[in-house]
Amino acid sequence: MENQNDIASASTIQVVRQVMNYWADRNKAVTDYFNKYADDFYYQEVAPNRSRAIYLFGHLIAINDAMIPLLGLGEKLLPEYAAMFIVAPDKSIAELPSMPELKKSWEKINHTLTQYFNNMSPGEWLDRHMSISPEDFRRDPLRNKLNVLINRTNHQSYHLGQLVLLKPELS
Amino acid sequence: MENQNDIASASTIQVVRQVMNYWADRNKAVTDYFNKYADDFYYQEVAPNRSRAIYLFGHLIAINDAMIPLLGLGEKLLPEYAAMFIVAPDKSIAELPSMPELKKSWEKINHTLTQYFNNMSPGEWLDRHMSISPEDFRRDPLRNKLNVLINRTNHQSYHLGQLVLLKPELS
Repeated sequence: MENQNDIASASTIQVVRQVMNYWADRNKAVTDYFNKYADDFYYQEVAPNRSRAIYLFGHLIAINDAMIPLLGLGEKLLPEYAAMFIVAPDKSIAELPSMPELKKSWEKINHTLTQYFNNMSPGEWLDRHMSISPEDFRRDPLRNKLNVLINRTNHQSYHLGQLVLLKPELS
Repeated sequence: MENQNDIASASTIQVVRQVMNYWADRNKAVTDYFNKYADDFYYQEVAPNRSRAIYLFGHLIAINDAMIPLLGLGEKLLPEYAAMFIVAPDKSIAELPSMPELKKSWEKINHTLTQYFNNMSPGEWLDRHMSISPEDFRRDPLRNKLNVLINRTNHQSYHLGQLVLLKPELS
Protein backbone atom coordinates (compact mmCIF):
# COMPACT_ATOMS: atom_id res chain seq x y z
CA MET A 1 0.00 0.00 0.00
CA GLU A 2 2.78 2.41 0.97
CA ASN A 3 4.58 2.37 -2.36
CA GLN A 4 1.28 3.08 -4.11
CA ASN A 5 0.80 6.06 -1.85
CA ASP A 6 4.22 7.29 -2.89
CA ILE A 7 3.34 7.45 -6.57
CA ALA A 8 -0.03 9.16 -6.05
CA SER A 9 0.40 12.35 -8.04
CA ALA A 10 -1.88 15.38 -8.10
CA SER A 11 -3.59 13.98 -11.17
CA THR A 12 -4.18 10.60 -9.51
CA ILE A 13 -5.74 12.33 -6.52
CA GLN A 14 -7.96 14.25 -8.93
CA VAL A 15 -9.10 11.20 -10.89
CA VAL A 16 -9.88 9.25 -7.72
CA ARG A 17 -11.83 12.29 -6.49
CA GLN A 18 -13.84 12.35 -9.73
CA VAL A 19 -14.81 8.70 -9.34
CA MET A 20 -15.82 9.34 -5.71
CA ASN A 21 -17.82 12.43 -6.71
CA TYR A 22 -19.77 10.51 -9.30
CA TRP A 23 -20.53 7.80 -6.76
CA ALA A 24 -21.89 10.48 -4.42
CA ASP A 25 -23.88 12.05 -7.24
CA ARG A 26 -25.68 8.81 -8.15
CA ASN A 27 -26.14 8.01 -4.46
CA LYS A 28 -27.87 11.36 -3.99
CA ALA A 29 -30.09 10.66 -7.01
CA VAL A 30 -31.31 7.51 -5.22
CA THR A 31 -31.92 9.48 -2.02
CA ASP A 32 -33.88 12.12 -3.94
CA TYR A 33 -35.97 9.49 -5.69
CA PHE A 34 -37.05 7.85 -2.44
CA ASN A 35 -37.86 11.21 -0.86
CA LYS A 36 -40.02 12.33 -3.77
CA TYR A 37 -43.30 10.47 -3.23
CA ALA A 38 -45.45 9.14 -0.38
CA ASP A 39 -44.39 5.76 1.02
CA ASP A 40 -47.24 3.88 -0.72
CA PHE A 41 -45.88 4.82 -4.12
CA TYR A 42 -42.82 2.59 -3.68
CA TYR A 43 -44.90 -0.57 -3.22
CA GLN A 44 -45.51 -0.68 -6.98
CA GLU A 45 -43.59 -2.91 -9.39
CA VAL A 46 -41.29 -0.97 -11.72
CA ALA A 47 -42.67 -3.08 -14.60
CA PRO A 48 -45.22 -5.95 -14.71
CA ASN A 49 -43.94 -8.97 -12.75
CA ARG A 50 -40.71 -7.19 -11.87
CA SER A 51 -39.40 -5.97 -8.52
CA ARG A 52 -41.17 -3.31 -6.52
CA ALA A 53 -39.34 -0.03 -5.88
CA ILE A 54 -39.24 -0.79 -2.14
CA TYR A 55 -37.40 -4.06 -2.85
CA LEU A 56 -34.88 -2.28 -5.08
CA PHE A 57 -34.30 0.23 -2.27
CA GLY A 58 -33.46 -2.62 0.14
CA HIS A 59 -31.32 -4.21 -2.57
CA LEU A 60 -29.28 -1.03 -3.04
CA ILE A 61 -28.82 -0.80 0.73
CA ALA A 62 -27.65 -4.44 0.92
CA ILE A 63 -25.18 -4.07 -1.97
CA ASN A 64 -23.78 -0.81 -0.61
CA ASP A 65 -23.49 -2.34 2.87
CA ALA A 66 -21.52 -5.24 1.39
CA MET A 67 -18.91 -2.74 0.17
CA ILE A 68 -17.78 -2.21 3.77
CA PRO A 69 -16.15 -5.67 4.14
CA LEU A 70 -15.29 -5.85 0.41
CA LEU A 71 -13.22 -2.68 0.77
CA GLY A 72 -11.71 -3.97 4.02
CA LEU A 73 -13.25 -1.15 6.01
CA GLY A 74 -15.12 -3.16 8.63
CA GLU A 75 -18.18 -5.32 9.16
CA LYS A 76 -21.56 -4.95 7.46
CA LEU A 77 -23.98 -2.76 9.40
CA LEU A 78 -27.09 -4.66 8.24
CA PRO A 79 -26.01 -8.26 7.52
CA GLU A 80 -29.65 -9.43 7.63
CA TYR A 81 -30.44 -7.41 4.49
CA ALA A 82 -28.50 -9.78 2.18
CA ALA A 83 -30.95 -12.65 2.71
CA MET A 84 -33.98 -10.41 2.11
CA PHE A 85 -32.69 -8.24 -0.74
CA ILE A 86 -29.94 -10.14 -2.54
CA VAL A 87 -30.59 -13.87 -2.04
CA ALA A 88 -34.41 -13.72 -2.05
CA PRO A 89 -36.19 -12.16 -5.04
CA ASP A 90 -38.98 -9.66 -4.40
CA LYS A 91 -42.34 -10.96 -3.20
CA SER A 92 -40.84 -14.19 -1.84
CA ILE A 93 -40.60 -12.90 1.73
CA ALA A 94 -43.77 -11.99 3.58
CA GLU A 95 -42.58 -8.93 5.40
CA LEU A 96 -39.93 -6.44 4.37
CA PRO A 97 -38.79 -3.49 6.48
CA SER A 98 -41.06 -0.45 6.08
CA MET A 99 -40.13 2.57 3.97
CA PRO A 100 -39.24 4.66 7.06
CA GLU A 101 -36.96 1.84 8.28
CA LEU A 102 -35.33 1.53 4.85
CA LYS A 103 -34.74 5.28 4.69
CA LYS A 104 -33.05 5.13 8.08
CA SER A 105 -30.87 2.20 6.93
CA TRP A 106 -29.95 4.00 3.69
CA GLU A 107 -28.86 7.08 5.64
CA LYS A 108 -26.88 4.96 8.08
CA ILE A 109 -24.96 3.09 5.35
CA ASN A 110 -24.33 6.29 3.40
CA HIS A 111 -23.09 8.14 6.45
CA THR A 112 -20.70 5.29 7.33
CA LEU A 113 -19.43 4.86 3.75
CA THR A 114 -18.86 8.60 3.39
CA GLN A 115 -16.79 8.66 6.56
CA TYR A 116 -14.72 5.68 5.44
CA PHE A 117 -14.24 7.05 1.93
CA ASN A 118 -13.11 10.45 3.19
CA ASN A 119 -10.33 8.75 5.14
CA MET A 120 -9.04 6.63 2.26
CA SER A 121 -5.91 7.73 0.40
CA PRO A 122 -5.59 7.25 -3.39
CA GLY A 123 -3.09 4.48 -2.61
CA GLU A 124 -5.73 2.62 -0.62
CA TRP A 125 -8.21 2.92 -3.48
CA LEU A 126 -5.62 1.37 -5.77
CA ASP A 127 -4.99 -1.53 -3.38
CA ARG A 128 -6.70 -4.88 -3.77
CA HIS A 129 -10.27 -5.47 -2.60
CA MET A 130 -10.98 -8.33 -0.20
CA SER A 131 -12.35 -10.80 -2.78
CA ILE A 132 -9.06 -11.12 -4.62
CA SER A 133 -5.93 -12.82 -3.26
CA PRO A 134 -2.60 -10.95 -3.14
CA GLU A 135 -1.27 -13.35 -5.82
CA ASP A 136 -4.15 -12.75 -8.23
CA PHE A 137 -3.97 -9.03 -7.56
CA ARG A 138 -0.32 -8.99 -8.57
CA ARG A 139 -1.37 -10.44 -11.92
CA ASP A 140 -4.33 -8.08 -12.32
CA PRO A 141 -3.83 -4.78 -10.45
CA LEU A 142 -7.00 -3.27 -11.91
CA ARG A 143 -9.03 -5.43 -9.52
CA ASN A 144 -8.66 -2.79 -6.86
CA LYS A 145 -11.01 -0.97 -4.51
CA LEU A 146 -11.61 1.82 -6.99
CA ASN A 147 -12.99 -0.74 -9.40
CA VAL A 148 -15.52 -1.78 -6.77
CA LEU A 149 -16.60 1.86 -6.44
CA ILE A 150 -16.91 2.29 -10.22
CA ASN A 151 -18.97 -0.89 -10.38
CA ARG A 152 -21.26 0.08 -7.51
CA THR A 153 -21.80 3.56 -8.95
CA ASN A 154 -23.06 1.92 -12.12
CA HIS A 155 -25.15 -0.44 -10.02
CA GLN A 156 -26.96 2.58 -8.60
CA SER A 157 -27.44 3.98 -12.12
CA TYR A 158 -28.76 0.64 -13.37
CA HIS A 159 -31.50 0.48 -10.76
CA LEU A 160 -32.22 4.21 -11.03
CA GLY A 161 -33.04 3.54 -14.69
CA GLN A 162 -35.65 1.04 -13.51
CA LEU A 163 -36.99 3.14 -10.65
CA VAL A 164 -37.75 6.16 -12.84
CA LEU A 165 -40.09 4.04 -14.96
CA LEU A 166 -42.58 4.37 -12.10
CA LYS A 167 -44.43 7.61 -12.60
CA PRO A 168 -47.27 9.03 -10.52
CA GLU A 169 -49.72 8.87 -13.45
CA LEU A 170 -49.34 5.09 -13.46
CA SER A 171 -50.26 4.72 -9.81
CA MET B 1 -2.68 20.04 -22.13
CA GLU B 2 1.08 19.51 -22.13
CA ASN B 3 1.61 20.24 -18.47
CA GLN B 4 -1.14 17.81 -17.58
CA ASN B 5 0.64 15.15 -19.62
CA ASP B 6 3.77 15.85 -17.63
CA ILE B 7 2.21 15.01 -14.29
CA ALA B 8 0.50 11.81 -15.49
CA SER B 9 2.05 9.20 -13.20
CA ALA B 10 1.80 5.44 -13.52
CA SER B 11 -1.14 5.45 -11.12
CA THR B 12 -2.96 8.13 -13.12
CA ILE B 13 -2.52 6.09 -16.27
CA GLN B 14 -3.92 3.09 -14.40
CA VAL B 15 -6.99 4.90 -13.06
CA VAL B 16 -7.79 6.39 -16.47
CA ARG B 17 -7.43 2.90 -17.93
CA GLN B 18 -9.88 1.52 -15.34
CA VAL B 19 -12.49 4.12 -16.23
CA MET B 20 -12.00 3.32 -19.93
CA ASN B 21 -12.26 -0.42 -19.26
CA TYR B 22 -15.50 -0.03 -17.42
CA TRP B 23 -16.90 2.06 -20.26
CA ALA B 24 -15.97 -0.75 -22.67
CA ASP B 25 -17.49 -3.34 -20.35
CA ARG B 26 -20.90 -1.62 -20.20
CA ASN B 27 -20.72 -0.90 -23.92
CA LYS B 28 -20.24 -4.61 -24.58
CA ALA B 29 -23.19 -5.41 -22.31
CA VAL B 30 -25.37 -3.25 -24.58
CA THR B 31 -23.99 -5.00 -27.68
CA ASP B 32 -24.68 -8.42 -26.14
CA TYR B 33 -28.21 -7.43 -25.19
CA PHE B 34 -29.10 -6.35 -28.74
CA ASN B 35 -27.59 -9.51 -30.21
CA LYS B 36 -29.51 -11.81 -27.90
CA TYR B 37 -33.00 -11.92 -29.41
CA ALA B 38 -34.68 -11.72 -32.80
CA ASP B 39 -35.24 -8.20 -34.12
CA ASP B 40 -38.98 -8.24 -33.35
CA PHE B 41 -38.28 -8.58 -29.65
CA TYR B 42 -36.87 -5.05 -29.45
CA TYR B 43 -40.11 -3.44 -30.66
CA GLN B 44 -41.64 -3.97 -27.22
CA GLU B 45 -41.89 -1.24 -24.57
CA VAL B 46 -39.62 -1.84 -21.57
CA ALA B 47 -42.60 -1.00 -19.32
CA PRO B 48 -46.20 0.08 -20.10
CA ASN B 49 -46.24 3.44 -21.90
CA ARG B 50 -42.46 3.71 -21.76
CA SER B 51 -39.88 3.64 -24.55
CA ARG B 52 -39.39 0.58 -26.72
CA ALA B 53 -36.02 -1.18 -26.62
CA ILE B 54 -35.36 -0.18 -30.26
CA TYR B 55 -35.78 3.50 -29.34
CA LEU B 56 -33.39 3.15 -26.39
CA PHE B 57 -30.86 1.57 -28.75
CA GLY B 58 -31.04 4.58 -31.06
CA HIS B 59 -30.87 6.86 -28.02
CA LEU B 60 -27.66 5.20 -26.79
CA ILE B 61 -26.18 5.54 -30.30
CA ALA B 62 -27.11 9.25 -30.44
CA ILE B 63 -25.68 10.02 -26.99
CA ASN B 64 -22.46 8.10 -27.69
CA ASP B 65 -22.14 9.82 -31.07
CA ALA B 66 -22.46 13.20 -29.36
CA MET B 67 -19.36 12.36 -27.31
CA ILE B 68 -17.21 12.80 -30.44
CA PRO B 69 -17.62 16.59 -30.64
CA LEU B 70 -18.00 16.92 -26.85
CA LEU B 71 -14.55 15.36 -26.40
CA GLY B 72 -13.17 17.51 -29.23
CA LEU B 73 -12.40 14.46 -31.34
CA GLY B 74 -14.30 15.37 -34.49
CA GLU B 75 -17.78 15.64 -35.97
CA LYS B 76 -20.77 13.42 -35.19
CA LEU B 77 -21.07 10.43 -37.51
CA LEU B 78 -24.88 10.31 -37.36
CA PRO B 79 -26.09 13.86 -36.66
CA GLU B 80 -29.62 12.94 -37.81
CA TYR B 81 -30.01 10.57 -34.82
CA ALA B 82 -30.28 13.42 -32.29
CA ALA B 83 -33.65 14.60 -33.66
CA MET B 84 -35.06 11.04 -33.70
CA PHE B 85 -33.62 9.68 -30.45
CA ILE B 86 -32.87 12.62 -28.14
CA VAL B 87 -35.23 15.45 -29.08
CA ALA B 88 -38.25 13.31 -30.05
CA PRO B 89 -39.65 10.83 -27.53
CA ASP B 90 -40.41 7.28 -28.70
CA LYS B 91 -43.50 6.71 -30.82
CA SER B 92 -43.63 10.35 -31.97
CA ILE B 93 -41.82 9.66 -35.26
CA ALA B 94 -43.42 7.36 -37.81
CA GLU B 95 -40.37 5.55 -39.03
CA LEU B 96 -37.21 4.74 -37.12
CA PRO B 97 -34.16 3.02 -38.63
CA SER B 98 -34.51 -0.78 -38.62
CA MET B 99 -32.72 -3.03 -36.11
CA PRO B 100 -30.08 -4.08 -38.70
CA GLU B 101 -29.41 -0.41 -39.48
CA LEU B 102 -29.14 0.47 -35.80
CA LYS B 103 -26.74 -2.41 -35.19
CA LYS B 104 -24.56 -1.14 -38.03
CA SER B 105 -24.65 2.40 -36.56
CA TRP B 106 -23.81 1.12 -33.07
CA GLU B 107 -20.77 -0.76 -34.43
CA LYS B 108 -19.67 2.27 -36.41
CA ILE B 109 -19.82 4.64 -33.44
CA ASN B 110 -18.11 2.12 -31.15
CA HIS B 111 -15.34 1.45 -33.62
CA THR B 112 -14.69 5.17 -34.06
CA LEU B 113 -14.81 5.94 -30.33
CA THR B 114 -12.47 3.05 -29.54
CA GLN B 115 -9.93 4.34 -32.04
CA TYR B 116 -10.14 7.87 -30.67
CA PHE B 117 -9.94 6.68 -27.04
CA ASN B 118 -6.90 4.52 -27.71
CA ASN B 119 -5.04 7.56 -28.99
CA MET B 120 -5.89 9.81 -26.04
CA SER B 121 -3.27 10.40 -23.36
CA PRO B 122 -4.24 10.67 -19.67
CA GLY B 123 -3.46 14.39 -19.97
CA GLU B 124 -6.06 14.74 -22.70
CA TRP B 125 -8.67 12.95 -20.58
CA LEU B 126 -7.97 15.47 -17.82
CA ASP B 127 -8.37 18.42 -20.17
CA ARG B 128 -11.65 20.33 -20.49
CA HIS B 129 -14.51 19.04 -22.60
CA MET B 130 -15.98 21.25 -25.30
CA SER B 131 -19.06 22.41 -23.38
CA ILE B 132 -17.06 24.29 -20.77
CA SER B 133 -15.09 27.48 -21.38
CA PRO B 134 -11.38 27.67 -20.48
CA GLU B 135 -12.29 30.19 -17.75
CA ASP B 136 -14.92 27.97 -16.14
CA PHE B 137 -12.62 24.98 -16.45
CA ARG B 138 -9.92 26.80 -14.52
CA ARG B 139 -12.40 27.22 -11.69
CA ASP B 140 -13.66 23.61 -11.89
CA PRO B 141 -11.01 21.24 -13.32
CA LEU B 142 -13.16 18.18 -12.63
CA ARG B 143 -15.32 19.13 -15.64
CA ASN B 144 -12.92 17.29 -17.89
CA LYS B 145 -13.25 14.67 -20.62
CA LEU B 146 -12.90 11.82 -18.17
CA ASN B 147 -16.01 13.07 -16.41
CA VAL B 148 -17.92 12.81 -19.68
CA LEU B 149 -16.78 9.19 -20.00
CA ILE B 150 -17.78 8.38 -16.40
CA ASN B 151 -21.18 9.98 -17.03
CA ARG B 152 -21.77 8.16 -20.32
CA THR B 153 -20.74 4.82 -18.80
CA ASN B 154 -23.44 5.30 -16.21
CA HIS B 155 -25.84 6.36 -18.96
CA GLN B 156 -25.33 2.95 -20.58
CA SER B 157 -25.91 1.24 -17.20
CA TYR B 158 -29.05 3.28 -16.59
CA HIS B 159 -30.68 2.17 -19.84
CA LEU B 160 -29.38 -1.40 -19.48
CA GLY B 161 -31.33 -1.54 -16.22
CA GLN B 162 -34.45 -0.70 -18.22
CA LEU B 163 -33.70 -2.98 -21.17
CA VAL B 164 -33.28 -6.11 -19.04
CA LEU B 165 -36.85 -5.69 -17.77
CA LEU B 166 -37.95 -7.05 -21.15
CA LYS B 167 -37.86 -10.81 -20.91
CA PRO B 168 -38.89 -13.35 -23.56
CA GLU B 169 -41.73 -14.70 -21.42
CA LEU B 170 -43.40 -11.30 -21.60
CA SER B 171 -43.38 -11.21 -25.37
